[in-house]
Amino acid sequence: MNHGYDFPRQIQFANQEEKQEFSKFPTKTGRRSLSRSISQSSTDSYSSAASYTDSSDDETSPREKSQVNSKGSSDFCVKNIKQAEFGRREIEIAEQDMSALISLRKRAQGEKPLAGAKVVGCTHITAQTAVLIETLVALGAQCRWTACNIYSTQNEVAAALAESGVSVFAWKGESEDDFWWCIDRCVNMEGWQANMILDDGGDLTHWVYKKYPSVFKKVRGIVEESVTGVHRLYQLSKAGKLCVPAMNVNDSVTKQKFDNLYCCRESILDGLKRTTDVMFGGKQVVVCGYGEVGKGCCSALKALGAIVCVTEIDPICALQACMDGFKVVKLNEVVRQMDMVITCTGNKNVVTRELLDRMKNGCIVCNMGHSNTEIDVASLRTPELTWERVRSQVDHVIWPDGKRVILLAEGRLLNLSCSTVPSFVLSITATTQALALIELYNAPEGRYKQDVYLLPKKMDEYVASLHLPNFDAHLTELSDEQAKYMGLNKNGPFKPNYYRY
Amino acid sequence: MNHGYDFPRQIQFANQEEKQEFSKFPTKTGRRSLSRSISQSSTDSYSSAASYTDSSDDETSPREKSQVNSKGSSDFCVKNIKQAEFGRREIEIAEQDMSALISLRKRAQGEKPLAGAKVVGCTHITAQTAVLIETLVALGAQCRWTACNIYSTQNEVAAALAESGVSVFAWKGESEDDFWWCIDRCVNMEGWQANMILDDGGDLTHWVYKKYPSVFKKVRGIVEESVTGVHRLYQLSKAGKLCVPAMNVNDSVTKQKFDNLYCCRESILDGLKRTTDVMFGGKQVVVCGYGEVGKGCCSALKALGAIVCVTEIDPICALQACMDGFKVVKLNEVVRQMDMVITCTGNKNVVTRELLDRMKNGCIVCNMGHSNTEIDVASLRTPELTWERVRSQVDHVIWPDGKRVILLAEGRLLNLSCSTVPSFVLSITATTQALALIELYNAPEGRYKQDVYLLPKKMDEYVASLHLPNFDAHLTELSDEQAKYMGLNKNGPFKPNYYRY
Amino acid sequence: MNHGYDFPRQIQFANQEEKQEFSKFPTKTGRRSLSRSISQSSTDSYSSAASYTDSSDDETSPREKSQVNSKGSSDFCVKNIKQAEFGRREIEIAEQDMSALISLRKRAQGEKPLAGAKVVGCTHITAQTAVLIETLVALGAQCRWTACNIYSTQNEVAAALAESGVSVFAWKGESEDDFWWCIDRCVNMEGWQANMILDDGGDLTHWVYKKYPSVFKKVRGIVEESVTGVHRLYQLSKAGKLCVPAMNVNDSVTKQKFDNLYCCRESILDGLKRTTDVMFGGKQVVVCGYGEVGKGCCSALKALGAIVCVTEIDPICALQACMDGFKVVKLNEVVRQMDMVITCTGNKNVVTRELLDRMKNGCIVCNMGHSNTEIDVASLRTPELTWERVRSQVDHVIWPDGKRVILLAEGRLLNLSCSTVPSFVLSITATTQALALIELYNAPEGRYKQDVYLLPKKMDEYVASLHLPNFDAHLTELSDEQAKYMGLNKNGPFKPNYYRY
Amino acid sequence: MNHGYDFPRQIQFANQEEKQEFSKFPTKTGRRSLSRSISQSSTDSYSSAASYTDSSDDETSPREKSQVNSKGSSDFCVKNIKQAEFGRREIEIAEQDMSALISLRKRAQGEKPLAGAKVVGCTHITAQTAVLIETLVALGAQCRWTACNIYSTQNEVAAALAESGVSVFAWKGESEDDFWWCIDRCVNMEGWQANMILDDGGDLTHWVYKKYPSVFKKVRGIVEESVTGVHRLYQLSKAGKLCVPAMNVNDSVTKQKFDNLYCCRESILDGLKRTTDVMFGGKQVVVCGYGEVGKGCCSALKALGAIVCVTEIDPICALQACMDGFKVVKLNEVVRQMDMVITCTGNKNVVTRELLDRMKNGCIVCNMGHSNTEIDVASLRTPELTWERVRSQVDHVIWPDGKRVILLAEGRLLNLSCSTVPSFVLSITATTQALALIELYNAPEGRYKQDVYLLPKKMDEYVASLHLPNFDAHLTELSDEQAKYMGLNKNGPFKPNYYRY
Repeated sequence: MNHGYDFPRQIQFANQEEKQEFSKFPTKTGRRSLSRSISQSSTDSYSSAASYTDSSDDETSPREKSQVNSKGSSDFCVKNIKQAEFGRREIEIAEQDMSALISLRKRAQGEKPLAGAKVVGCTHITAQTAVLIETLVALGAQCRWTACNIYSTQNEVAAALAESGVSVFAWKGESEDDFWWCIDRCVNMEGWQANMILDDGGDLTHWVYKKYPSVFKKVRGIVEESVTGVHRLYQLSKAGKLCVPAMNVNDSVTKQKFDNLYCCRESILDGLKRTTDVMFGGKQVVVCGYGEVGKGCCSALKALGAIVCVTEIDPICALQACMDGFKVVKLNEVVRQMDMVITCTGNKNVVTRELLDRMKNGCIVCNMGHSNTEIDVASLRTPELTWERVRSQVDHVIWPDGKRVILLAEGRLLNLSCSTVPSFVLSITATTQALALIELYNAPEGRYKQDVYLLPKKMDEYVASLHLPNFDAHLTELSDEQAKYMGLNKNGPFKPNYYRY
Repeated sequence: MNHGYDFPRQIQFANQEEKQEFSKFPTKTGRRSLSRSISQSSTDSYSSAASYTDSSDDETSPREKSQVNSKGSSDFCVKNIKQAEFGRREIEIAEQDMSALISLRKRAQGEKPLAGAKVVGCTHITAQTAVLIETLVALGAQCRWTACNIYSTQNEVAAALAESGVSVFAWKGESEDDFWWCIDRCVNMEGWQANMILDDGGDLTHWVYKKYPSVFKKVRGIVEESVTGVHRLYQLSKAGKLCVPAMNVNDSVTKQKFDNLYCCRESILDGLKRTTDVMFGGKQVVVCGYGEVGKGCCSALKALGAIVCVTEIDPICALQACMDGFKVVKLNEVVRQMDMVITCTGNKNVVTRELLDRMKNGCIVCNMGHSNTEIDVASLRTPELTWERVRSQVDHVIWPDGKRVILLAEGRLLNLSCSTVPSFVLSITATTQALALIELYNAPEGRYKQDVYLLPKKMDEYVASLHLPNFDAHLTELSDEQAKYMGLNKNGPFKPNYYRY
Repeated sequence: MNHGYDFPRQIQFANQEEKQEFSKFPTKTGRRSLSRSISQSSTDSYSSAASYTDSSDDETSPREKSQVNSKGSSDFCVKNIKQAEFGRREIEIAEQDMSALISLRKRAQGEKPLAGAKVVGCTHITAQTAVLIETLVALGAQCRWTACNIYSTQNEVAAALAESGVSVFAWKGESEDDFWWCIDRCVNMEGWQANMILDDGGDLTHWVYKKYPSVFKKVRGIVEESVTGVHRLYQLSKAGKLCVPAMNVNDSVTKQKFDNLYCCRESILDGLKRTTDVMFGGKQVVVCGYGEVGKGCCSALKALGAIVCVTEIDPICALQACMDGFKVVKLNEVVRQMDMVITCTGNKNVVTRELLDRMKNGCIVCNMGHSNTEIDVASLRTPELTWERVRSQVDHVIWPDGKRVILLAEGRLLNLSCSTVPSFVLSITATTQALALIELYNAPEGRYKQDVYLLPKKMDEYVASLHLPNFDAHLTELSDEQAKYMGLNKNGPFKPNYYRY
Repeated sequence: MNHGYDFPRQIQFANQEEKQEFSKFPTKTGRRSLSRSISQSSTDSYSSAASYTDSSDDETSPREKSQVNSKGSSDFCVKNIKQAEFGRREIEIAEQDMSALISLRKRAQGEKPLAGAKVVGCTHITAQTAVLIETLVALGAQCRWTACNIYSTQNEVAAALAESGVSVFAWKGESEDDFWWCIDRCVNMEGWQANMILDDGGDLTHWVYKKYPSVFKKVRGIVEESVTGVHRLYQLSKAGKLCVPAMNVNDSVTKQKFDNLYCCRESILDGLKRTTDVMFGGKQVVVCGYGEVGKGCCSALKALGAIVCVTEIDPICALQACMDGFKVVKLNEVVRQMDMVITCTGNKNVVTRELLDRMKNGCIVCNMGHSNTEIDVASLRTPELTWERVRSQVDHVIWPDGKRVILLAEGRLLNLSCSTVPSFVLSITATTQALALIELYNAPEGRYKQDVYLLPKKMDEYVASLHLPNFDAHLTELSDEQAKYMGLNKNGPFKPNYYRY
């Protein structure tokens, strides 16, 4: 599941050995933090509006249960296979908003471009992912799947997948040990060997590298969608250890715009409303950072009547903010007057205790940026300040003089914690993943080396085109004469690689 | 509690006699439905984001309980006096967003303009109302209070009020009989007689008329904030039966703009997101009606990237829609293409079954208008259609061919049912009510006759001015020379009565 | 011709007697300045983008010329009848944007509702007015016409009207004496007596009152469109001297919205660009006054990326500014930082010399408000300041330290002086005038007394409906059931009189 | 002078030989047309709002005049040296809006980074260019200058430059022969040899290549700002004939954004208003192409109340249009309903005769795109259609049935022909050029080879930072800790090269 933001991976490992193993994949380096990922830590808290069923009544570990689906198969491990019907409905609802995948399914169903593909996957397991998995199956693939996060699995959806014949190993609330057990069960299957890997975060890839390196002999490629996972792949490549081609789907144009600009434009308002019921009209807001995320936040807040100013370190982005009608200020110059402070920098300690001390009563502080480092929340955990949880994800931090600062999601990502991601955004990612799998699986030998690739521009355009019917959008076609004049192929690609959309 | 919208009052009375009694107050007439009220039926369903405690475990009727507050008083009837502390915190949080009332409290606390006032009130009982009641008390009034809706009471808040000494008779989930019993207990108090009435919906006023007409001998005035209640007062006045002055606070400029334009601009997005997680970008939306509510909805949706068109019956509003950049269409011309249909007309059967039959799969239908009449929901209750409740307030209505129409709140008001009203909007209403009470209570004899009055423009301006500090707004003052040039008093009023803000 | 703004009438009279006569019509009183008119002084300077021909080569006074049109008539007085063909083309171009009038012409041509009407008119004489006059003729009226401003006549258009048989007495650059001579020639015609008056500014009405009072015995009504003229009529009415019904078309809803909000939204950008080529993005702008004019200016400037704040004296308008996302400030708090200062208050000395002294180098100062009083231009005419005219309508006022303030149109109305008014806005006024004439001329006796009336709401709606086809807008019609439910006539009016659009 | 748009260079050469010479530089190839240039043909028509003086009274060729400036020099050739004072004022006014250059002048004046530089330049000669040239002089350079376009020279500015000691050879209305003569006089100077070239369009570079190739022995680099010129340089480089380093300033981020998105957002409204006085509210507009230019146009038009739809060939841009709230259509589907058709594609024959035939009466057609090829204007030059010039740059094309289509600037660039470019945009280009000169002139040997380079990102950021004070923008600085966390140098560059702003 995508959410458009990057979490630092800080998995708490049960045993020290694994931890050291992992530390081979450095997770913090210079440039990484500038881009934004869709992957979150496998142990981050996770809110999903779509989780309706309460499974808390059943305390038995799925690993200890013996379950069989209606076709007699028991090659799966989910919370409760009986929830399959409910999960099926969730999947059907998701399909309504993911018509691009359905359309891909229909277009490619005849030729079965994934016939023979044996895909092992590790992603969030949600209704939207299920639409992806079932699309892969429809295109000819066999799939084994596990969860990339111990909290994010929709149990009913996992049940529905298991019922339909996909070998799923995942449930909500896995332990660390469960997490790796599930991955292992996916990969380590008698008489079945994966030839494609679809990963979100790099844990599955890591496990295969560590435990079953011989699998890579058959694998035609890895598709990875998270910043963290992509970073790991580039590290492997640099170190000369990447032994199969890999596709970085995180940085495709379409996905980036949707994960950042458009998704944040929608979720900033939603996240703030659901947590605080705040009125936007006339509110003074400072948005720290005017990258794509900041641009999305500013645009939405201004449109609803907030008075927005911006902080920036980069003069080019600052100039854009000016031209877009936002005053560029330093945070300490304005913090006293602000009704809301929103961080979108990808940096750390942007909102320090000193700044928090100067905020006015009732100021809302939240983070839309790269991780929970932007607001120095730790500095608020001091004896003189009182914390009062007033709602889920909402804390009042109270100063000795009675001043309250309203901290959302304890400084974690607001839109991940307190909002939802539209299925349409997820559809774009899922379609990109599917096309990347098809491309890698079908590429003639030699097209891809043991390196990390971006999705070919033409496929990026294809992803976009599959989503246009959602908007009843009608593309214009170039005439032969026009194509010649422009020096373009009529079917694209239409822009050079350096084009800034 | 205010929500800015008008519900037809269709209380189901237990006995026929009362029903007939009530029928003296006609509830449907020509013009009424054109304006919008803040009152809803006393029996409408009601969602409040601020209701955290679950009282469902205690099945005993409050009327049968014997409760005493910490000062020894038992002149109240609430669900559970022990919830007072929790309710107090809710009130304190509300106070943060209602600084206008707090400011009024401070400014007028010295002179106690309500000293001697005995106010009997009937409103929604929420944290925001509590701030109003405690302001009245701070200004010198004695208050007895009851709920105007059987579902809307926040039990903890009622407890907090009772604990602080206000005689409250209200709980969530009253029966019809409880409802009138509570009103009666407020009015009918040995050794205490109301001299001011604050009503929301007209039920309290009605009860006094019916049972204790002699009370009016001492009453200096009625303050009424709902369309329905105001309508009843005008009827009484026309019939020559209004025996005290009454103040119509519903139609004050400030309140109207906030209840309609600004409040709907904020709540349309919130209501849609909380129920459907829909992405707004690129969605084709038709908004039926381009009055203040429609204008608010259109503005917000367009700002978030939706492609919005409008239906109108009034050529002047239609021309405004054109100039504001919205195509004016007939619903049947566009309904097939729409992703969302939103009604804001105040009319009935705007969305008929025939139109519903022609909607596309996945179309969202909801109502922001005057009542649950705009969408012909009844026409969907036919055997060939399947209803599937997918979330609270969200139904999928499924046609035989599998097409799903997503109906929100069963056609009731979206923002009342699925969203929240910002405290700031409530603050404007509450401040207007407080000023109306002060005006009526202190007016020299003869200023007000036995008629229905609008709040003097100057007080409307005062309400606005009390709210400006929230925005750190600095008013300019006229110089003597300028005031003379404009023919204005430096302290206002600044506009003629007919001015269109 | 309409321009949507009010000029103080300060005609410099040749002889003292007339001046005294005029002083009976007080031109400055309390409320007047709050509304905005379409009339300007008959001697104000006037820019028109549509004036292409240069007549300066011919110095002979039209009064001394003998001219005959192609039909042999000489009952007119224009600059040069030979320009008729060029003027006809101008009229034809104007007709393209005034389809509402053409449509009215077609609809009513059969019944000739103005058959027998003898209309004497005094307005700006432009292509747009010509479309109005020829519409009146098409509906059966006989027309004699003169100019309400000594500079605004388009000579070619006057020639075209004269050629087509309308008795026009007007040319660009009349003297004061010419002005009254032309009016007199219109009214004082052997064997022809007006029974309807269409006036813009009240000069024609005044002349008839003074010289030919007996004319009023036959006159069925006066239609007046300017603030000043309307004010005079109200004065006459108050004094009991109004002897025929009069229609105030200035305050019709449709016209007001277009003259102020919409017209200013368009013209503020245009006026600034044409004079200064300024870039709007990132500019800091303060708009003084948040009435309809201020709202229009703020909306356009914000949309183009300016950072806009607002000054206000009225807390209600101030609150609207806040909710619309504009910081409300005092001018002296911000003037130092501003790139532009725009006045829209209708007041005097809003921008004082003291404030001008504090502006930064390059600050642009202009006025969109009621007259040339808002900026204290006189205070800049001091020896230490240098004035440099850099373009038409653009002065650099240079302080001793080299600081330049850029003053537009010497503080007169920017959009009148430096921009144009769209034909569509003029069409709305002209249509309103035509309908007002029809209504007064055909009203059964007794419907209108000797008083000033607003156009009936239904006709206001009719004006709007005639303009909807320009936008291809499709109105919805009420069903019988809906009309009944709303208590409305299916053909309107649709709103109560007090409705705020 | 920059204008942000690309004109095909179609210089009509006097003799065939030169033409062949030139044809070595192919001007039309595949990708070129996708980016947009600031250069226009040296013979294109050119409108400038800043040209106030009329020199048409003097018919003598400047080449035949003998003129001396006040210091006794005659090493220049301008229209009239006596206009110097007027030109000086124009330059001073321009300086007010080009504070970045002035600031650069001040910062670098001490170290004189261009001491010893001998710059020969060929650009538009306007007040803004003069500010650039005088900045170069202030930094130590000697300059000789000529015009890159035969129409665009502001004669008074040329005079002022000549008076101040710059050797300028340029006037408005040069013949083709004059054009090359002027270039030659710049380059071919006894005892003075250029060591830097600043070119706009490539003609100067071409001349040096052709006539004085030995000059390149001393030249440290070429700075080129036009698409065409840059294209020629890449061709030379590819052919191995580029013998000095060259800097492509056309493609710097800051410049691109301002030349396209921001500049078009401002100029589309201005160009339409100045030519047609059209009202934007409610107009139905189709914008062909949703690149940066299209995005700017759509944003401005939507903001002013137009109803805008978009055509696109590229699914990614189409998806952006959808998310930004614009319906994506094919031109032939909507052309009948449109009030305006605006082309921004960079392609040819986007608006064909067939489409023009189907437009409705009064439809406005104009081009904001790459050249005059987008609208098939030639197809309108047929006998059955009548052309009527109604204003400068405005033609009514009239169909036999009386339908008029309003064609602006005969299909050439609207904003170049009918609008102006803000000095701020020109300032960004000029500053970029100055920094490129400094960089090339001071670069240690070996940093730049005989190739075409983009301005280093850090200098791009520096250009932006020099312009921030115009907006009173305050940049935030990274702390050491933050810079380390981000892996950034505190002084930038702040983004990777592939970053999409």
